[in-house]
Amino acid sequence: MNNLKLPELSDIREAHKRIKPYIHKTPVLTSSQLNKIFGANLFFKCENFQKVGAFKYRGATNAILSLSDEEVSRGVLTHSSGNHAAALSLAAGMRGAKAYIVMPENSPDVKKKAVAGYGAEITLCEPTLKAREETSSKIIAEKGATFVHSYDNFYVICGQGTSGLELITDYPDLEVVIAPIGGGGLMSGTVTAVKGIKPEIKVYGAEPLGADDAYRSFNSGEYIPYHTPNTIADGLLVTLSMRTFEIIKRKVDDIFTASEESIIECMRLIWERMKIIIEPSSAVTLAIIRENPELCRGKNVGIILSGGNVDFAKLPFRQAT
Amino acid sequence: MNNLKLPELSDIREAHKRIKPYIHKTPVLTSSQLNKIFGANLFFKCENFQKVGAFKYRGATNAILSLSDEEVSRGVLTHSSGNHAAALSLAAGMRGAKAYIVMPENSPDVKKKAVAGYGAEITLCEPTLKAREETSSKIIAEKGATFVHSYDNFYVICGQGTSGLELITDYPDLEVVIAPIGGGGLMSGTVTAVKGIKPEIKVYGAEPLGADDAYRSFNSGEYIPYHTPNTIADGLLVTLSMRTFEIIKRKVDDIFTASEESIIECMRLIWERMKIIIEPSSAVTLAIIRENPELCRGKNVGIILSGGNVDFAKLPFRQAT
Repeated sequence: MNNLKLPELSDIREAHKRIKPYIHKTPVLTSSQLNKIFGANLFFKCENFQKVGAFKYRGATNAILSLSDEEVSRGVLTHSSGNHAAALSLAAGMRGAKAYIVMPENSPDVKKKAVAGYGAEITLCEPTLKAREETSSKIIAEKGATFVHSYDNFYVICGQGTSGLELITDYPDLEVVIAPIGGGGLMSGTVTAVKGIKPEIKVYGAEPLGADDAYRSFNSGEYIPYHTPNTIADGLLVTLSMRTFEIIKRKVDDIFTASEESIIECMRLIWERMKIIIEPSSAVTLAIIRENPELCRGKNVGIILSGGNVDFAKLPFRQAT
Repeated sequence: MNNLKLPELSDIREAHKRIKPYIHKTPVLTSSQLNKIFGANLFFKCENFQKVGAFKYRGATNAILSLSDEEVSRGVLTHSSGNHAAALSLAAGMRGAKAYIVMPENSPDVKKKAVAGYGAEITLCEPTLKAREETSSKIIAEKGATFVHSYDNFYVICGQGTSGLELITDYPDLEVVIAPIGGGGLMSGTVTAVKGIKPEIKVYGAEPLGADDAYRSFNSGEYIPYHTPNTIADGLLVTLSMRTFEIIKRKVDDIFTASEESIIECMRLIWERMKIIIEPSSAVTLAIIRENPELCRGKNVGIILSGGNVDFAKLPFRQAT
């Protein structure tokens, strides 16, 4: 399942056909106020309204539906403390597959509870890469579970691309599409879908300045799989894989970074003006427009709001304006 | 404009025809998770997505569009520090009418700025009823402005009823409709519209226990226009007028109160599960179901989410679960 095959538009179309009965077709919202502020026609694809509150459910569902019955009987495994773990757990349940989730023992209780609530079996480990991989390998050896990486996985990437596929299908006049980049799964799927259908469209990646490995890899042309992330956008802390770097290098037009201040300000703007809840990772998209006002001026811009899972007790807002 | 004429369904239909080009037809959202938690089929009418973030824009727009050109030239006035002031200011601008807003000097800066941003002329006064009325009377005498009360006004009530009209028209299978009660404008319009179309439907009012004048008036049969409000639901601090009491007494099936704990918990549930931002006043509706679990069991229930204007720096959430 983890060979380096790169997805084509046809793979994403197939994924969409496969997962369509199980996912939400998320709405596309607009805001005349935000259009005025940013001088562009913004079309927000709301994956915060997706099941488990994030686009991750698309990729996880595609991965689960692509398993053989025999693989299903042995279960799936991932290490993640975020939206992918929740998504994989819920999707696995749909086929009666066991989901083994390896989480660092210092994960917040709220995340442990969420994943457990979807029926997964959680194994805690020390918060190191070594402990995570050893713990995962041990379970895979014992149970024969299939490892489903949160982004370095062909089926996951194809699933994530279905959001962009819906967006460009319903809004063929888009001239730009922007998606956030963490591990690059969403961006890889998005650019493949969107440029597959409309080759002349511009596709930009949005990354926090405090976790800019993709920006540096993209601009140097060399795969730089490390950074010391420091950002509120907690869905974007991971680095590209070789596979997602390959796709992004080939297809994405440019990558822009945004400061923490811009990310928080744009998150607040979307909450306040659109009355929807998005997580900081989603706001990085609007934040790169804020920092590059000419980039999208007067254009029809699709923006993928990746998710809406936020701890309401720890919000970054100091004062509403 | 302020005679005691009570609205009929036909008045609300006329209001709808009048304001339709200027308002948003707000969406109706559902949540399978909340349906499961509450054991009912809940249909949320999202006035938080209305212009200025609240149903108040409907009533204000109807009032403004019902003015003669001569009245328009002299402007409108209201005293309010909340959503009605913002709504009236924006609606007035649509006809080039001046909006005079009398606000207590201790109103939060954020509210003053919002109203000023819509182009209104703000006059600050001492935070007493006497100062408010004297200041208003002075401006009305000087400018000849038309006073538009935030709920004790025929046109305002008719406008507020258009949300329920849209809801019952699009969801004729509803068996119950719930709306919050503050001054009673929204409830009066809602019950008139909804029962006008479907007389056998049950309509319940939702009030904070900490601002329960309508509950007490309704149950005693006697108009009790005072309370000492103490609730986070800051849209529901006012009391019924004679007119709204009359409508509610005649038509509403029952009124239920909810504790602060229930209001906050239901606000959190809607934020967390539906990923939409609602203000505490909106959550009182779901909170009465939480406190009366048998009331709606198995039924199709329409819920009017009145608005989404919240100060993000002052949220009541302690810990996400």
